[in-house]
Amino acid sequence: MANSPSGESVTQRIVRVLETFDADRPVQTIAEISRRGELPPSTGHRMVADLVDSGLLERDDAGRIRLGLRLWELAQRGSRALRLRQIALPHMEHVQARLREHTQLAVLEQDEALFLERLSNPRAVSNITRIAGRLPLHASSSGLVLLAHADHALRERMLAGPLTAVGPETVTDPDELRTALERIRRDGVAIAPGSIEDVSTGIAVPVRDGRTGPVIAALSVVIPRAAPTAGAVDELRSAAVRISAQLTQPPRT
Amino acid sequence: MANSPSGESVTQRIVRVLETFDADRPVQTIAEISRRGELPPSTGHRMVADLVDSGLLERDDAGRIRLGLRLWELAQRGSRALRLRQIALPHMEHVQARLREHTQLAVLEQDEALFLERLSNPRAVSNITRIAGRLPLHASSSGLVLLAHADHALRERMLAGPLTAVGPETVTDPDELRTALERIRRDGVAIAPGSIEDVSTGIAVPVRDGRTGPVIAALSVVIPRAAPTAGAVDELRSAAVRISAQLTQPPRT
Repeated sequence: MANSPSGESVTQRIVRVLETFDADRPVQTIAEISRRGELPPSTGHRMVADLVDSGLLERDDAGRIRLGLRLWELAQRGSRALRLRQIALPHMEHVQARLREHTQLAVLEQDEALFLERLSNPRAVSNITRIAGRLPLHASSSGLVLLAHADHALRERMLAGPLTAVGPETVTDPDELRTALERIRRDGVAIAPGSIEDVSTGIAVPVRDGRTGPVIAALSVVIPRAAPTAGAVDELRSAAVRISAQLTQPPRT
Repeated sequence: MANSPSGESVTQRIVRVLETFDADRPVQTIAEISRRGELPPSTGHRMVADLVDSGLLERDDAGRIRLGLRLWELAQRGSRALRLRQIALPHMEHVQARLREHTQLAVLEQDEALFLERLSNPRAVSNITRIAGRLPLHASSSGLVLLAHADHALRERMLAGPLTAVGPETVTDPDELRTALERIRRDGVAIAPGSIEDVSTGIAVPVRDGRTGPVIAALSVVIPRAAPTAGAVDELRSAAVRISAQLTQPPRT
């Protein structure tokens, strides 16, 4: 593909433009996009015009730019995130109806926990997770489950650090983390009080691709720090078993 | 941007590659992508390699290609689809819990109804809608609501045809469609029996951006053809009012 003088491909620059958007910056001017994407203004203008033409970006009434619905549509179609999320959603709703706390589904993506879905309760405890948001593997309960079941190379790479503290009780000591991961594999649950925020405890269980298949996701809830965890663990475990069983069935429309 | 000999931009070719994937073809070989994207094999290889590098596509264990989670993640962030869907989801769940039928949310996108969400009931009537799927504006109940409230130019363009029959009772006569759209605007609901499939009736109501704002989406259910519609209309209307009211509130985490 045509490369820029810096040797970067057009695809990489397109990704860089798209990456300047997030939940806090859903609408930007072309100047902002160029600055954040570190593109010369003329290149920024040309790329945005081209991305608007193809529908990946949209211009609003004020001439500002936002991500296009076309991008969302293309990403949804045939996405492996979609099938997992579709199967998990009714079971997540059941967990949320029972516990009335934030309920989330995360997968391992580029060394982080990527959240595919989050059902929230306005009255539930504080929770920084967002759909399509990410959290470090060693800090979130979902990430700990995914890391505990990740391949050896990734686990050792993470244990080699650096392990940054996110909450007051994030495990940042490699030996302590290694022991925690062993316990998570043995018990089939990660319970992480204060690991992300002081006020809350994350609880996550593995979701397998079929009853005995590999772990492909983590199902979690975030509950107040003082709340008992046993009921939540039971609810999560039975929901995860139901999701796993359904994943092995052929897709249906 | 660098253009191919055909004058097409790299962005357009990337979109063309991504468009070869859908729910029925989630995984493809590079040869299939090149053929369906109408790209010379060498171009197809180069583009796929580049898209895999940037995470927009992924290679599976067998070397076949699927859409990358990175694409999904980028598309979710800051997407206007996400906020609307997030706000609507609890109200859609309520409708589905009461009616136990397919419940959907659609927006107008490039002259079609694009479905942002669908909650399904395995025991409900047949339904061809898919998340990120599209239906013609004149055929689906959601599309009829969106068309009834679309700007004059789009409405006239659609009325000028061609109006293709999708189901046995799709309205394909322009005068009949014009009358139907007036009735939908007056009554605030579209009821379309047999318009998509013989066995089912689609019922859709407008969702406004705020109590008296413009129509930005259609909330719908698909029920068996023989079922009464009044209860469904009431449920949809009150859910749409609750969604509209919430849309005007500032976003919260």
